[in-house]
Amino acid sequence: MIKTLGAKNLSYANRGMTLEADLEATNHFYLVNDVAVIYKKPTPITISKVNYPSRIEAVIKEGYFRTPSTTDYNGIYKGKYIDFEAKETKSHTSFPLNNIHVHQIKHLKRICAHGGIGFLIVRFTTLNKTFLLTYEVLEEFIESNDRKSIPLSYFMDRGYIIKDKYNPRVDYVQILDKLYFGGTS
Amino acid sequence: MIKTLGAKNLSYANRGMTLEADLEATNHFYLVNDVAVIYKKPTPITISKVNYPSRIEAVIKEGYFRTPSTTDYNGIYKGKYIDFEAKETKSHTSFPLNNIHVHQIKHLKRICAHGGIGFLIVRFTTLNKTFLLTYEVLEEFIESNDRKSIPLSYFMDRGYIIKDKYNPRVDYVQILDKLYFGGTS
Repeated sequence: MIKTLGAKNLSYANRGMTLEADLEATNHFYLVNDVAVIYKKPTPITISKVNYPSRIEAVIKEGYFRTPSTTDYNGIYKGKYIDFEAKETKSHTSFPLNNIHVHQIKHLKRICAHGGIGFLIVRFTTLNKTFLLTYEVLEEFIESNDRKSIPLSYFMDRGYIIKDKYNPRVDYVQILDKLYFGGTS
Repeated sequence: MIKTLGAKNLSYANRGMTLEADLEATNHFYLVNDVAVIYKKPTPITISKVNYPSRIEAVIKEGYFRTPSTTDYNGIYKGKYIDFEAKETKSHTSFPLNNIHVHQIKHLKRICAHGGIGFLIVRFTTLNKTFLLTYEVLEEFIESNDRKSIPLSYFMDRGYIIKDKYNPRVDYVQILDKLYFGGTS
């Protein structure tokens, strides 16, 4: 089956519904209001065939999705390097760790070792709850557990709820203010 | 004409010859030696047709190259956010500014305003000389000139030569040490 998406990007297909779309709107809000400069990295693709009549008219005729080496989001906030992965789960009870690649966890570990701020944003879609979990707290879980998923209770106890807002929709830098910049909000 | 690239990624096509390949090797060296964590962002692509029998077997059947919103490279070095664009030119005398998109220059300006380190790496391939030019010095040129290209002499006077090395091949953090971290090398 061939899915034809018209002129739209895959990542825009569910705009307004998904965590990805909410984060895109949030990062755009941060950008235009000069709060932070944070972008989602493009999906890595291996191109095997290109129709290339000229540089401007190039059409990719065959390509494959690659496994990303890093997390999806990075940028700068208040002078600090920021790096995170964002994931949704339909589960009511836990977040399956196989949603995150091992090399993404290693990447976050490196970022923290080099003085950056690394974390996950996880949305339980059926509960409509979005959490920020710092890399350090994620690492603590992985090292002290054989479980293949992080229970919701761990997010409740050790993570931070990102409250739904109209604009910005997923205001995660508020949590970073509290954790890393001595904020009181 | 359809170019078939076999299993190879487009960006690997000229490996060992291009600035991009040299930077990839350099960033890999920095990563495995725990010097810095800096990656090239994937090329942004708009996908319009996908053959999608299952997630793992997805094949892109039609896609287009998008203009990037940001620079190609970012990451962290000694706790600081690093952001740069890398370009080659065949000219012997100057670097044409139309090699850099206006929004990439705006992006670098934002990065510096937020406390990051932004710069260009420019290689004059026919001269085999590679320069680092800080965003601030680039901005100075743009604001005080109507010229459409930066003369080589400006790179000689206001930029920093990155010496060719065996490993890492383009050791640009040495220049950053000198400029931003009080190094003497």
